Amino acid sequence: MIVRFGGEIGIKSEWTRRIYERILFKNMQETLECQSIAYDRIVRRRGRFYVKTHKTQEATEKLTRVFGISSVSPAVETSSDIKEIVQTSLDMASLTIQAQSGFAVRCHRVGKHSYSSIDVCREVGKQVLDSLKERSVYVNLDSPDHALEIEVRDAEAYVFVETLRGAGGFPVGSQAKTVALLSGGIDSPAACWLVMKRGCPIVPIYLDNSPLTDEATRTRALDIARKLFEWSFGHPRKVYIVPHGANLQTFVNKAPRRLTCLLCKRMMYRIAERIANLEKAEGIVTGEAIGEQASQTMTNLRVLDEAAKNYPIHRPLLGFDKTETEALARRIGTYEISIRKAKGCSAAPSQPATQARLAMLKEAEEGIDIEKMVDESVNHAEVITI
Amino acid sequence: MIVRFGGEIGIKSEWTRRIYERILFKNMQETLECQSIAYDRIVRRRGRFYVKTHKTQEATEKLTRVFGISSVSPAVETSSDIKEIVQTSLDMASLTIQAQSGFAVRCHRVGKHSYSSIDVCREVGKQVLDSLKERSVYVNLDSPDHALEIEVRDAEAYVFVETLRGAGGFPVGSQAKTVALLSGGIDSPAACWLVMKRGCPIVPIYLDNSPLTDEATRTRALDIARKLFEWSFGHPRKVYIVPHGANLQTFVNKAPRRLTCLLCKRMMYRIAERIANLEKAEGIVTGEAIGEQASQTMTNLRVLDEAAKNYPIHRPLLGFDKTETEALARRIGTYEISIRKAKGCSAAPSQPATQARLAMLKEAEEGIDIEKMVDESVNHAEVITI
Repeated sequence: MIVRFGGEIGIKSEWTRRIYERILFKNMQETLECQSIAYDRIVRRRGRFYVKTHKTQEATEKLTRVFGISSVSPAVETSSDIKEIVQTSLDMASLTIQAQSGFAVRCHRVGKHSYSSIDVCREVGKQVLDSLKERSVYVNLDSPDHALEIEVRDAEAYVFVETLRGAGGFPVGSQAKTVALLSGGIDSPAACWLVMKRGCPIVPIYLDNSPLTDEATRTRALDIARKLFEWSFGHPRKVYIVPHGANLQTFVNKAPRRLTCLLCKRMMYRIAERIANLEKAEGIVTGEAIGEQASQTMTNLRVLDEAAKNYPIHRPLLGFDKTETEALARRIGTYEISIRKAKGCSAAPSQPATQARLAMLKEAEEGIDIEKMVDESVNHAEVITI
Repeated sequence: MIVRFGGEIGIKSEWTRRIYERILFKNMQETLECQSIAYDRIVRRRGRFYVKTHKTQEATEKLTRVFGISSVSPAVETSSDIKEIVQTSLDMASLTIQAQSGFAVRCHRVGKHSYSSIDVCREVGKQVLDSLKERSVYVNLDSPDHALEIEVRDAEAYVFVETLRGAGGFPVGSQAKTVALLSGGIDSPAACWLVMKRGCPIVPIYLDNSPLTDEATRTRALDIARKLFEWSFGHPRKVYIVPHGANLQTFVNKAPRRLTCLLCKRMMYRIAERIANLEKAEGIVTGEAIGEQASQTMTNLRVLDEAAKNYPIHRPLLGFDKTETEALARRIGTYEISIRKAKGCSAAPSQPATQARLAMLKEAEEGIDIEKMVDESVNHAEVITI
């Protein structure tokens, strides 16, 4: 298999690129090993890896889900002897090119050989026409139904007909660790995924609102975390489960009802800051999108932010429409889990504030021992590996 | 024309929905008027507007660029008399349905009529088959080449064959104003656009690094601002141009070179905070994406953030790959402007810090009168309307 990682990794400085390549190499190994996909070895070359395996289909499927990989082509390896290239190409053509269809042959060559790329294309093209005469195939260079691609590199050659898009981004581990608020809803997993895609290992934090939510809500969040970790094999699978129901109940009892969600969120940020500090993480990821909920108006995001003094709140979904987030969640595989029935938060007020002022929140928090509540929650956090 | 705004606006509370509809109504009017597209009137109905105009093509093109609109169908209006519906449908069919193709008729009806939706479909279908006999058209309900759609609403009916996707999001003005750092590069306009899409009017701030950059860099940024404002007709087109070259030169002279970009950015944030305050804006938008540049590693974003004490830094491109941002910039219309030749910043060091610690930056800033520099820049800012 040919695994490409050009794009953004390719334009980094030599030094950075090497580090990224090493991390990607390790992530690929872990991805194949954790999922018991046998392979001989992975060979690194400039801009790509060659993975030697007989489990081509499974390996392709798994490697297109490794961040940092831009594309994958299942290929047949042969020597760079032109006769062998032609024979391998003919075998591949016979298996894939259908009757009455147009095909093209493309060749990319690196190294010293007794032939040029054009020689390869001509020879393979001629022989395919000849051997598939009965299927009435024809050459169509501009928009072929089938493209037979040959990559010659020094002593080896690779023949392939298919190139699958990879997940893109940077290899997980190339950027600093971040903690993430993970609720079990549709948005927060998509936010986590986007940050993982750009290279950050994540540590999900689930704020457990029970008894205001139920066991199913918690199970759903953990199943989502599990699904997310399928995109970062080889990295820790740690989740914090933090009791938050008592905090929420305090806000319901002691503060104006229209501020409940904002007070709850500010508390979540504070708890996340403590855990970021414990974890030596560099930021906090949330699933907020501008205007998606009353608590997420541009005005409210500002008063929320004020509660996180030491860590940036990263909101990769800021500009996403709900339909876009849902489409992404489907691609990640978390959508189906998020729409499972679970008890939603029963503390949400019917008329939440959309334009809260900081002074209102500060006043509401005044009569409440916020620091003690944070301590209590963090001290009773359960840390599990899933 | 039928203009739909369902989706996320549709699920808001009645009260919020009405406000959003009113803003959208005004934005549509302004968009048509600013671009001299004549129209009779805009009629508001639940979930949609009907725009009466003869300039259907131009109006469609412009309205698909108004945030909050989910789709637009150019249509022919007629009365809800079934004879007129059939005649209008036949005219439309004759103009659009090609020979040897399959068609479907679909009808959506609201109000009291002497016929059902199915009656309309049957009658129109039968007559189309009859009148286009020579073209050998046939009915194909599942995957038609042409769908003839009829919307009957009380006394009126609308016949259309085409539905174009709108820009989505929320109408500009439904969320609080934000300031945005706009450089003229590819990323920052895309970040601005995403935030505008979610309803925020923006006030771009261009930090002018001359003499370390040139006039072309400034012109490019202003042309981009102009292009962005084409997505928010009816809202102020104010831009701040802030002298920043002297600040940058100070950092180059007085601080470790590997910290130049970080110190420069922290300064930009501080200036943006002042302007946000002047503008009564609620946040600061930047084009940063995790790991896209050395200054944008997850670790560096944290030390940058620390400079903005009073406003959240919103980074809607956090999880975008460069190719995704480029594709978005092309759609917006800013890509072609951003790739124009202009002098890049000549102060960028060859070995920038990728894992800066806050203490390093604080130390570097210690010998520099940061507050005075911010004052100087903001006091000499030029505010223009473009």
